[in-house]
Amino acid sequence: MKDISLPSTAGAVNKLIDSLGKLPGIGPKSAQRLAFYLMRAPEEQVLALSDTIRSIKNQISQCRICFNVADSELCPICQNTKRETNKICVVEQPQDILALEHVGVYRGYYHVLHGAISPTEGITSQNIRISELMSRLDNGQVDEIILATNPTTEGEATAMYLSRLITPLGIKVTRLARGLPFGTELEYADDVTLSRAMEGRQNF
Amino acid sequence: MKDISLPSTAGAVNKLIDSLGKLPGIGPKSAQRLAFYLMRAPEEQVLALSDTIRSIKNQISQCRICFNVADSELCPICQNTKRETNKICVVEQPQDILALEHVGVYRGYYHVLHGAISPTEGITSQNIRISELMSRLDNGQVDEIILATNPTTEGEATAMYLSRLITPLGIKVTRLARGLPFGTELEYADDVTLSRAMEGRQNF
Repeated sequence: MKDISLPSTAGAVNKLIDSLGKLPGIGPKSAQRLAFYLMRAPEEQVLALSDTIRSIKNQISQCRICFNVADSELCPICQNTKRETNKICVVEQPQDILALEHVGVYRGYYHVLHGAISPTEGITSQNIRISELMSRLDNGQVDEIILATNPTTEGEATAMYLSRLITPLGIKVTRLARGLPFGTELEYADDVTLSRAMEGRQNF
Repeated sequence: MKDISLPSTAGAVNKLIDSLGKLPGIGPKSAQRLAFYLMRAPEEQVLALSDTIRSIKNQISQCRICFNVADSELCPICQNTKRETNKICVVEQPQDILALEHVGVYRGYYHVLHGAISPTEGITSQNIRISELMSRLDNGQVDEIILATNPTTEGEATAMYLSRLITPLGIKVTRLARGLPFGTELEYADDVTLSRAMEGRQNF
């Protein structure tokens, strides 16, 4: 951790800059700007922010069914009885659900693994919510599992593992299409993306 | 304020995302990322951040002399008796001191106006720390005032006002040089910058 403390300002300001600078995506300059903003912001806003941060750990639990973040036993999605019960989309993290829900094309349920299999980090299939996913398939209602793990080595390994586990149950296993992202130029696409786009070419 | 709440996640998470999203430079996506980070961060770190934010308003006051942020009667710079007592550099905000101190070429003292004259926003010379600056000149120790207000309309107006006020006292009034910023290309410089760089050309 780089020392970003500034001898020319007050100690309490440095402490705040330091705390803010530890957050992801907040560099020394942003931390400085935020600290000076908070010093001048209305007291109610500052106290509200402090309280909200303080309470986030106590107020948040995991959904009993899908392990999405929840403030009651079930998350808002599992509480919704109008979604398609025959589909489960498997993601690595709760924030992946936000991204997919933002798109709005999927109407089934989710399952959050809370990680991906990664031998280098010592994360095995036991450390993520795989057994809980398998239990959800017992009732025979689910006929499609959509693997939406990240397109990384760990995500692909996890998808591969799950596919081998679930396919024998007679449940259809699909995954998010691989290909060229929207708005890019072919010229700048990396080799892996391009080869997958070619392999997975679709009828026009 | 755009509503960035997400129906697919817990209410407490939305509240945190909302609070974080009100901070300057934190967009909806960053707010989301920070919220999910805080949910998984160690409890000590989260509580420490909450406490530091909560206490910033109580612990911070303004330096009695220069109005920089301070956690005692004097700021760290005014406490330092080894600086040059004959120079005062006038800035708009405390964070401007950080930027100048980071450069490290100036060894005098500072004066923070806490704003700039802006008729459109109703900020007059009475609303910023000008009279306090004038009082500091009474002892006759200061022989140079460096105007380091921002190169904006308001900053220039404030510098102009101060220059007219201070020059008659027989004190040298200077300001930060205007010209081309380092690392840019002449081709892309705006007209005002270029004309000032030409007017203020220096011997090679």
